[in-house]
Amino acid sequence: MSTFGTLFRVTTYGESHCASVGAIIDGCPPGMPLSDVDIQPQMTRRRPGQSALTTPRNEADAVQIQSGVEAGVTLGTPIGLLVKNKDQRPHDYTETDHYPRPSHADWTYLLKYGIKASSGGGRSSARETIGRVAAGTIAERYLKMAYGVEIVAFVSSVGKVHLPESSTDDDLLSEDYLKLLSTITREQVDENAVRCPHEETADLMQERIIEAKSKADSIGGTVTCVIRRSPVGLGEPVFDKLEAKLAHAMLSIPATKGFEIGSGFKGTEFAGSVHNDAFIKKPDGKLGTKTNRSGGVQGGISNGEDIYFKIAFKSPATISQEQATAKYSGEAGVLATRGRHDPCVVPRAVPIVEAMAALVIME
Amino acid sequence: MSTFGTLFRVTTYGESHCASVGAIIDGCPPGMPLSDVDIQPQMTRRRPGQSALTTPRNEADAVQIQSGVEAGVTLGTPIGLLVKNKDQRPHDYTETDHYPRPSHADWTYLLKYGIKASSGGGRSSARETIGRVAAGTIAERYLKMAYGVEIVAFVSSVGKVHLPESSTDDDLLSEDYLKLLSTITREQVDENAVRCPHEETADLMQERIIEAKSKADSIGGTVTCVIRRSPVGLGEPVFDKLEAKLAHAMLSIPATKGFEIGSGFKGTEFAGSVHNDAFIKKPDGKLGTKTNRSGGVQGGISNGEDIYFKIAFKSPATISQEQATAKYSGEAGVLATRGRHDPCVVPRAVPIVEAMAALVIME
Amino acid sequence: MSTFGTLFRVTTYGESHCASVGAIIDGCPPGMPLSDVDIQPQMTRRRPGQSALTTPRNEADAVQIQSGVEAGVTLGTPIGLLVKNKDQRPHDYTETDHYPRPSHADWTYLLKYGIKASSGGGRSSARETIGRVAAGTIAERYLKMAYGVEIVAFVSSVGKVHLPESSTDDDLLSEDYLKLLSTITREQVDENAVRCPHEETADLMQERIIEAKSKADSIGGTVTCVIRRSPVGLGEPVFDKLEAKLAHAMLSIPATKGFEIGSGFKGTEFAGSVHNDAFIKKPDGKLGTKTNRSGGVQGGISNGEDIYFKIAFKSPATISQEQATAKYSGEAGVLATRGRHDPCVVPRAVPIVEAMAALVIME
Amino acid sequence: MSTFGTLFRVTTYGESHCASVGAIIDGCPPGMPLSDVDIQPQMTRRRPGQSALTTPRNEADAVQIQSGVEAGVTLGTPIGLLVKNKDQRPHDYTETDHYPRPSHADWTYLLKYGIKASSGGGRSSARETIGRVAAGTIAERYLKMAYGVEIVAFVSSVGKVHLPESSTDDDLLSEDYLKLLSTITREQVDENAVRCPHEETADLMQERIIEAKSKADSIGGTVTCVIRRSPVGLGEPVFDKLEAKLAHAMLSIPATKGFEIGSGFKGTEFAGSVHNDAFIKKPDGKLGTKTNRSGGVQGGISNGEDIYFKIAFKSPATISQEQATAKYSGEAGVLATRGRHDPCVVPRAVPIVEAMAALVIME
Repeated sequence: MSTFGTLFRVTTYGESHCASVGAIIDGCPPGMPLSDVDIQPQMTRRRPGQSALTTPRNEADAVQIQSGVEAGVTLGTPIGLLVKNKDQRPHDYTETDHYPRPSHADWTYLLKYGIKASSGGGRSSARETIGRVAAGTIAERYLKMAYGVEIVAFVSSVGKVHLPESSTDDDLLSEDYLKLLSTITREQVDENAVRCPHEETADLMQERIIEAKSKADSIGGTVTCVIRRSPVGLGEPVFDKLEAKLAHAMLSIPATKGFEIGSGFKGTEFAGSVHNDAFIKKPDGKLGTKTNRSGGVQGGISNGEDIYFKIAFKSPATISQEQATAKYSGEAGVLATRGRHDPCVVPRAVPIVEAMAALVIME
Repeated sequence: MSTFGTLFRVTTYGESHCASVGAIIDGCPPGMPLSDVDIQPQMTRRRPGQSALTTPRNEADAVQIQSGVEAGVTLGTPIGLLVKNKDQRPHDYTETDHYPRPSHADWTYLLKYGIKASSGGGRSSARETIGRVAAGTIAERYLKMAYGVEIVAFVSSVGKVHLPESSTDDDLLSEDYLKLLSTITREQVDENAVRCPHEETADLMQERIIEAKSKADSIGGTVTCVIRRSPVGLGEPVFDKLEAKLAHAMLSIPATKGFEIGSGFKGTEFAGSVHNDAFIKKPDGKLGTKTNRSGGVQGGISNGEDIYFKIAFKSPATISQEQATAKYSGEAGVLATRGRHDPCVVPRAVPIVEAMAALVIME
Repeated sequence: MSTFGTLFRVTTYGESHCASVGAIIDGCPPGMPLSDVDIQPQMTRRRPGQSALTTPRNEADAVQIQSGVEAGVTLGTPIGLLVKNKDQRPHDYTETDHYPRPSHADWTYLLKYGIKASSGGGRSSARETIGRVAAGTIAERYLKMAYGVEIVAFVSSVGKVHLPESSTDDDLLSEDYLKLLSTITREQVDENAVRCPHEETADLMQERIIEAKSKADSIGGTVTCVIRRSPVGLGEPVFDKLEAKLAHAMLSIPATKGFEIGSGFKGTEFAGSVHNDAFIKKPDGKLGTKTNRSGGVQGGISNGEDIYFKIAFKSPATISQEQATAKYSGEAGVLATRGRHDPCVVPRAVPIVEAMAALVIME
Repeated sequence: MSTFGTLFRVTTYGESHCASVGAIIDGCPPGMPLSDVDIQPQMTRRRPGQSALTTPRNEADAVQIQSGVEAGVTLGTPIGLLVKNKDQRPHDYTETDHYPRPSHADWTYLLKYGIKASSGGGRSSARETIGRVAAGTIAERYLKMAYGVEIVAFVSSVGKVHLPESSTDDDLLSEDYLKLLSTITREQVDENAVRCPHEETADLMQERIIEAKSKADSIGGTVTCVIRRSPVGLGEPVFDKLEAKLAHAMLSIPATKGFEIGSGFKGTEFAGSVHNDAFIKKPDGKLGTKTNRSGGVQGGISNGEDIYFKIAFKSPATISQEQATAKYSGEAGVLATRGRHDPCVVPRAVPIVEAMAALVIME
């Protein structure tokens, strides 16, 4: 279903070519100042056409709150919101009428629903994420005001170009990297178009994306996100561990293939005696951990340390390079999709990851 | 909460030292032959003390069906089941009364609930997984009978020892590895104690575990799981993509830190033109994919190819080596937990992963 | 929360004075012909100002489908829909700024949310029901096309004026009444303004409503609904019995105070030997019941007989007669709300009851 | 499904002839004193065989807590509990092997599941209510300790014998009746076997039940329940109004056919000017209502006044009198079920209604 969350709950609707895309946010606490302009910045960070690195479509994506807010303050009732679609006509004939795009949702949607939206993927359209970004931005605003929670995501790799996380390959996370996690701001992330807060790496990433673009090809990458000043005690002991809900949320973003929290996959290579986070008395007199390989979660429950995690995004499936594949009919052929396509989604994915993180914390 | 699933739903209860641990399985289809002995094998694979590699506690873990089955056949009503705990007394004085174990749930449980079970972690006990394994085994039985679904998990790494997945570090998954995924059986997995179906690697893994054990230390690893002959069309387009539900399920298993599906994190390094799974007409006349980097899921929906994924398990937090840490009071000290501990959980995690996979497919 | 249903799920938003009211319908099967005009008739039956009996506000209430439908056919994806509010400005000063209306939601909303929409009741506005009627109409359309289900509601009492259900007060339901239930159509119901399919009674009901109106007062009543040709096997044995879900749905309609199914409250007065529905072989060779005091449900599960039930609606709380009451401040005073008010809601409640019935069956 | 509640959630299992019946209660707050003996009194009030008025089976129904409690205090983790069944063998041949009992669940269960428990009704067995009563008793205990909530139910009618609620038939609820609601205790209710706190009426009720019993027949009735000192603000504005959840809960009890809150069905006959609950400043300085026709709920949200409602129970379907009916095969015949049956369930239903009320308030 198209609903996420229990106490703070978002339900989204909309495809590429319908009248509008939007969402209903239920469970937003009453009495919070809120208007369209509070939501718009993340909508704008999400939309394509922001730099030479992305698809040239420039969608305005102006969000319109429909309900749940009066005199600039939330009522505690459901917040309806929508963004009008520019192009509401089902599209004209294209090559994808005959070909399911390789590694795209075209074929599985047809298998599941027995019907095909003219745009092919229907709800798999990146426009679906508009509703979540709007909802997540409202959640984040509440978390910031009520608890001072800070959520910042950034691009940590593009292709084989990785932001450095440890001094040597045999080490766990370096001091420098952990300091980055504990201080990085959204403004710093936006200093370059690729949204990687390590200038040297950012330059290489841009080159890699431009290379993909020049070949009518695409490239994948990873996004890392940190949640600071999270309330303690979030997450349930068994099936709804905080990391399980974060993984669920992140793998619901289109094109994702992996999730890791704290020391993640690499951490499995280290002995318990090295990996365990020893306890210490913190300057504020409270118990805390000396290191934070756990990523802010122990036994499925937040412990007050920074929560950080990484998400893998595969290279976009839609490329204009020719691909030898088969038609819906099974007949072999060569597909070359027209138009320009986004060669790398990770810079645009940053606000989506932040939004989903906020939704999990509010849940 | 302690409930997983919507249409096939499991709810579990139980800690280490209470009367019993168990589960209620609701939504099991009527008319399926079922008795205790159908569930027991996976319970036995899960329990500790199976080999020199694990903790020497030998719990019988005999499952007792309470309801929902009459004359050996399911009624369609809830199946209650339980396993009695051998030792029902809260434990005697130990060092962990004063120390929260580093990287364990002791501290976060106390933060969340304001009360501490004598066993420390309460529901974070590995005994909690008994209920899920029982439920997953029933789910798997139905899936096998109704659709021929096959679910097999195995250990793919222990520490830095990895089962080989590609010919070179710069390649994606090799033919040999994909063939392993498409043919491996649970019997083959159980041929060695470490449950790695690659003998040479298995030997190295055993050495690594024995090394950890000899140092009163622990080591992490990964488990890979494949679901073959899954129905097509599983998963929802947006928030409940099949990979999102799998990630949720897998990261609800204790000690997990990561999840990846298909080509996963490594796949992000490859261009779309290389990574995309081209369509072909399969021998049965149906459309399928030539490669399977997507891991059986496209646009969040199963496409009928093998679904495979990998889960990261950190090194167990409880070690008997001395650890410099702090007491609940904040006072610094040295903790050396008594008793023998499981140096590596991945072999025992294999049936738990299989059970959770079955629960997701049935959901 | 503002969500109803599991597999077919509606979420609504909107207050009296916001930009629009609307809903997202998730889980609508793909491939069903659908457009705005299929939904409009029930929207029109619901809106005020249809006859001299109701409030004179004439809201156009034109529904606009936003998504989930392409080329006149459902896609299986969420259907967003909305109806614009005519008057989007928060209202001017009125007496209800100082007085919580007796027996209205004004006071409890303030208790719960600590904030007051200018319109007082916020979500308790009758405009909230627009979203449900739209959703229910889509559900009903599917049920009709897939199973031939027929849902018809009508007004069965206004004040002390009751449509006759039995020959004497000591009898259970009469043959005539059961025949009415099994044959009544929506067209017949709409033959008079009060929507009671018993002309003589309808005339008396109209008189009673006109009396209330002339005194600036209001009057309550009941609505009876029948669901014919329902699939068998609906409802769950324990907490989600079909009658429990129907009761839940019906008591979620504003101003409702009671629900009874089959022989209801009166049926409790009869002995089991009289009340039990004996089984017989029906003309189609299937087992059925001779009488139907159960109202189509036994053990919480539909048995294929007509499902019929009755809902109590209290007299509307908002009246323009003077009422001795207290202000928010606690100070005693006299409230006379300005404007004209609906003296009796039951005729307008008919399509709302039908919509909720359809939502329960689709759930 | 067999689950009720969101934040405080109960899941039940068990049929008549399985090993045990039981429940898992999830979401019980930590730190509450609790042991078997706190639950037992309501279990004992629920069980049959308590007086000459009920079935002579005397089941011990000793509840055994399995988990979630340590050293007599709740841990915040799931509470598993069970009651062993005395007779675990599927029953011997009886006449109900061939006949679906009229107005019982036998036939609809077979329609839904395609399989028949030997006991016929399976989950429709009154033994299923054991789990809910246990869960509700725990919920009630918490509500009492945390908020001082008092929940008392009693029998308000048997057949045509009604506890008087108004002075004349044309009046609404009398002062005497409202005083009864505001003061009645569980001890007073238990002063007679029929659980009606109006001695004269109670005597007539007993006669009516004994009459039914002597004829091998059965009789229905109603139970009224009052919740005093409920927290304000419970219930959601739209689909989950407090009265909707109460109706859902009450109609999930076996044999129920109706629910009304506050002035209920009769209240619909009165004009708004008479029926509205005017506001007054209460002695404690807070705003309250002068009358309470709303039954403690306005706009779906509790307002702090007494919440009271009535539930209709039909006459039990299983009677030993001969009934002309049909076999599963469709063949006409005469069914006379052997054994002794409960001629009237309402006295035993009292603790079940109380339990479900507590579950709704805790939800």
